[in-house]
Amino acid sequence: MLDFMRELYPVCRSITGEGVRQTLARMRAAGVPLQVHEVPTGTPVFDWTVPPEWNVRRAWLDDPSGRRIVDFSDHSLHVMSYSVPWQGELDLEELKPHLHTLPAHPDWIPYRTSYYTPKWGLCLSHRQYAALRPGKYRVCIDTDLAPGHLSYGELEIPGASTDEILVYSHVCHPSLANDNLSGLAVTLWWAKALLSQPQRRYTYRFVWGPGTIGSLTWLALNRERWPRIRHGLVAVLLGRPGAFHYKRTRSGDAEIDRVAALALREHAPDAVLRDFEPYGYDERQFGSPGIRFNVGRLTRVPNGEYPEYHSSADNLDLVTAEALTGSLEMCRTIAGVLEQNHVFHNLAPFGEPQLGKRGLYRAVGGDVPLEREYAMLWLLNQSDGEHALLDIAERSGLPFGLLASTARELVQAGLLRAGNDAKEGT
Amino acid sequence: MLDFMRELYPVCRSITGEGVRQTLARMRAAGVPLQVHEVPTGTPVFDWTVPPEWNVRRAWLDDPSGRRIVDFSDHSLHVMSYSVPWQGELDLEELKPHLHTLPAHPDWIPYRTSYYTPKWGLCLSHRQYAALRPGKYRVCIDTDLAPGHLSYGELEIPGASTDEILVYSHVCHPSLANDNLSGLAVTLWWAKALLSQPQRRYTYRFVWGPGTIGSLTWLALNRERWPRIRHGLVAVLLGRPGAFHYKRTRSGDAEIDRVAALALREHAPDAVLRDFEPYGYDERQFGSPGIRFNVGRLTRVPNGEYPEYHSSADNLDLVTAEALTGSLEMCRTIAGVLEQNHVFHNLAPFGEPQLGKRGLYRAVGGDVPLEREYAMLWLLNQSDGEHALLDIAERSGLPFGLLASTARELVQAGLLRAGNDAKEGT
Amino acid sequence: MLDFMRELYPVCRSITGEGVRQTLARMRAAGVPLQVHEVPTGTPVFDWTVPPEWNVRRAWLDDPSGRRIVDFSDHSLHVMSYSVPWQGELDLEELKPHLHTLPAHPDWIPYRTSYYTPKWGLCLSHRQYAALRPGKYRVCIDTDLAPGHLSYGELEIPGASTDEILVYSHVCHPSLANDNLSGLAVTLWWAKALLSQPQRRYTYRFVWGPGTIGSLTWLALNRERWPRIRHGLVAVLLGRPGAFHYKRTRSGDAEIDRVAALALREHAPDAVLRDFEPYGYDERQFGSPGIRFNVGRLTRVPNGEYPEYHSSADNLDLVTAEALTGSLEMCRTIAGVLEQNHVFHNLAPFGEPQLGKRGLYRAVGGDVPLEREYAMLWLLNQSDGEHALLDIAERSGLPFGLLASTARELVQAGLLRAGNDAKEGT
Repeated sequence: MLDFMRELYPVCRSITGEGVRQTLARMRAAGVPLQVHEVPTGTPVFDWTVPPEWNVRRAWLDDPSGRRIVDFSDHSLHVMSYSVPWQGELDLEELKPHLHTLPAHPDWIPYRTSYYTPKWGLCLSHRQYAALRPGKYRVCIDTDLAPGHLSYGELEIPGASTDEILVYSHVCHPSLANDNLSGLAVTLWWAKALLSQPQRRYTYRFVWGPGTIGSLTWLALNRERWPRIRHGLVAVLLGRPGAFHYKRTRSGDAEIDRVAALALREHAPDAVLRDFEPYGYDERQFGSPGIRFNVGRLTRVPNGEYPEYHSSADNLDLVTAEALTGSLEMCRTIAGVLEQNHVFHNLAPFGEPQLGKRGLYRAVGGDVPLEREYAMLWLLNQSDGEHALLDIAERSGLPFGLLASTARELVQAGLLRAGNDAKEGT
Repeated sequence: MLDFMRELYPVCRSITGEGVRQTLARMRAAGVPLQVHEVPTGTPVFDWTVPPEWNVRRAWLDDPSGRRIVDFSDHSLHVMSYSVPWQGELDLEELKPHLHTLPAHPDWIPYRTSYYTPKWGLCLSHRQYAALRPGKYRVCIDTDLAPGHLSYGELEIPGASTDEILVYSHVCHPSLANDNLSGLAVTLWWAKALLSQPQRRYTYRFVWGPGTIGSLTWLALNRERWPRIRHGLVAVLLGRPGAFHYKRTRSGDAEIDRVAALALREHAPDAVLRDFEPYGYDERQFGSPGIRFNVGRLTRVPNGEYPEYHSSADNLDLVTAEALTGSLEMCRTIAGVLEQNHVFHNLAPFGEPQLGKRGLYRAVGGDVPLEREYAMLWLLNQSDGEHALLDIAERSGLPFGLLASTARELVQAGLLRAGNDAKEGT
Repeated sequence: MLDFMRELYPVCRSITGEGVRQTLARMRAAGVPLQVHEVPTGTPVFDWTVPPEWNVRRAWLDDPSGRRIVDFSDHSLHVMSYSVPWQGELDLEELKPHLHTLPAHPDWIPYRTSYYTPKWGLCLSHRQYAALRPGKYRVCIDTDLAPGHLSYGELEIPGASTDEILVYSHVCHPSLANDNLSGLAVTLWWAKALLSQPQRRYTYRFVWGPGTIGSLTWLALNRERWPRIRHGLVAVLLGRPGAFHYKRTRSGDAEIDRVAALALREHAPDAVLRDFEPYGYDERQFGSPGIRFNVGRLTRVPNGEYPEYHSSADNLDLVTAEALTGSLEMCRTIAGVLEQNHVFHNLAPFGEPQLGKRGLYRAVGGDVPLEREYAMLWLLNQSDGEHALLDIAERSGLPFGLLASTARELVQAGLLRAGNDAKEGT
């Protein structure tokens, strides 16, 4: 995953443009047969409109002595995203409103955007900014802001059920490693893992599109799919080490919320659970009042809560292979619990069945039971058609994996039957 | 308010009598057009009967030497409320059962009553009591206990809706400043403030009557009004400095309970919230099982929880202008939240609407949002017709006032529409 | 109770056999007219079958020198319950798999069973075991494992209602004092106390049968009674001093759960409340998904949580008269709350009724009310037909006994009427 990120790090990914196309093409090349959708500028998308496509040929700033002090070819953050084209000379005081810096981190270049207001801007380190002397500066913002397309990638991995798990990770943001090349890497490898499995209970839908306008566009163009989205996860900011943060869906107690809480409690006890708020990434759109998908969000340290956020310090040095691998495992664990969360029916519900005669219980009694015996007793007691494995794991405190494997044993012994919900999978 | 209290402090207010009439007349004179109701002795009031009217001409105690040691004209607490008339001579031992003191506070005169059992009594400081020497004492209890009327004041301030907010404050209790001249002052000034407003969502009904029998009488005579009482507040003991105590309604989660909790959390963080109990002031009657109004109670330190309670130490020195003003503000804040607690509908519910194109969001992105932007996002996300502003304030933790003003902006921008509940007001 | 236990302590009680019969006969002799049921070997009981009856004539182990080192006549724990008959000579290494010890407690004999797998075994102290030298050992397990009967005792004590309180205490386990001779003693004395009362609201059903197979057998043979079981308690392990532990029913919020919580909070504040888990004693069967009786469990320190559990150290020295008496009182207190937990209707529900004129309230007011007056106010306020005494005790924090006696006073005063549920009792 680090190699993949290293290769794509220099690319300037905004919400539209060649950088996005190049990124999606590279993801396809990694072996995932995603489909690239191109949506024309001007397409109405609920309250929004697909914007003009934006591309940068070059952008620079020359100081009064003619020295090139800022150059887009050095770093894609130097130009404010969606800067309109502009060329000319300016006095320092005229120039300053167009320059963006981070005074608190004088060596870092900030990330700034102006998607929907026609402006131009350059971003640079505050140290460089502070050294600027009065005089005439020459500016070149050689960008295209013209009818074109918004590009997003989509991958459907069919499962036994047509019910879907939606995974969204934003493809925009230029040279920022954690936000969100890391999310692209983790979800790409997750998709690869799913493709290599013989079968799945749920259909998975991965969408890699720009933030906000990308999820809105997918939603507007896929209304017939809405009823199929049963669970969802926005998976972003997954490469910088730090405790997992799971942000609940708008409803707060959806199955994905309880599943994520269980998976994190079992496998990442330092994880933080957060309530929904209508600020963040694309879960905002999925959780809007007209849509109300059960889409949670998994990050490590969230947006705005690590110092390097939205600056040139969010670079490849910030992310580690361990963090990426751990994030991939957590995504797969959460989906694994969803896949296995079936309701079972106890076929011998009057009292406990005699486990000993089936070889399921130790022959000599009098001592305390083993964890697997506890799991059998809990499964038999709670499998009244009203409790899924997740309910039983929450009530018993037993590991979900133990309950799932023990349930399989009890099915084989003829003591449990999987409920209707399970016809479709596993 | 302090001047008003100073003027009325010496008056002997029992549950009936001239003291109550005089107090209500003084309140009318303060510019509030309250109506005085006179209910005849003997009127049945549910399980009760309006008692005889009680008035005191004079009452005193002379010691064996002929010295007047207790005199009603010095302090209205000296005579037990509803003492029957009696004159005569008694030995000290015969006298003692009729004398009431507070041994723990030897300089204070207690407040005692015997409304429904014919007795007479005198209240005096324990220091005085301890100094009594054997001998013949002369007693004069020159009171009237005769058919008359129970008086209470009522003021209706019409609003856009016929739904009412009921405010009750007891007019009984003789020379006690906090309990409850303070409540009379605060609710009188509250009524004056409402009268000076151009309009209100709710109709307000202020009732100033004696404790227990007063609220019972109003309830018995106004059954046709019961369905209109949507919220209510018993507002008493509001002049002695100390943390606010809000006592919940019998149901415990009425709108007034949640509104009071929010207003106190925002404006008086040291406030204490208490569950309902069927002991206290007139909220007992409003919360009885056949009535079940949603009436909470606002006090500062409640009955029985400050040392001066029901004694001559509850005098004008105990109350402050700051406490009275703060109490008035809190009553108005609670009512203000009730008035503004509307449900809105998001008119662009699919995803977030594009705030930038309406000038509602900053043009340059990449930084964390402002509190007002958060308020917009929360309002849009939660305005699905199921959540009122109070729900949104509770969930978001944002100030109610900010949400209310931002909701008005969003209505003006055509993004929110007020729900039916709001037709009637604001 | 201690004498009763002393007499029965040496008896070998397994899940069937003469020891059980002898124990039940002794209980009858104590003045409780229980009925002994004999269920033939082979009777199908849900997923189980009534096992062969097991009796021990003699069992011993002679060491290579011919010395008798283990003898059933010394202690009934020496032979593993349900050991098949076997006689013969064995080398030490062949013998060892048949010997059971407790290495952590080298002086104690463990309690071991093999009810449903044909094995034989001897239990001895680890100290004795460690001293065994190589050589030929002679074994005699002279047991009968043959068609016979499973015996259990049953006692119905009729009440005003046909709704039943089921009490179960296991009669199996050989010479173990706390587990469960103590439960037999406490429930026997409880039954005696009930029989001496003139009347009861509920019908009580005591069942004394072996663990697991006994409750299953009763359930299988009494399906027509199932709908009558309204509350139930497994009452076991009640003689060893230690805090009470109440284990909730499967539902977790049954009336018996709330009653037990209240009774323990009021009378045994160090008690521990535990959630249901499908491991323990016969509450497992009553709480299985096809049965779902509201049966909780009262013990002192539960199974597996005291060191002497299931060993020869669970002997008469472990139990005390105080613990037994306290347990009996707690059982009776819990049942007493169930008996008195009626719903009342306030007959003067508009406001508070005038208590003073009925002599129910002190004549002189102005001071804080007494606890009995609080109880009246709470009863009147909450007796709207929706709240039983238990609800009122929980909400008010007042003692249940005070509320129950005050409710009787208010019924006599014509202010409360007992609801329909109460027709049947008290």
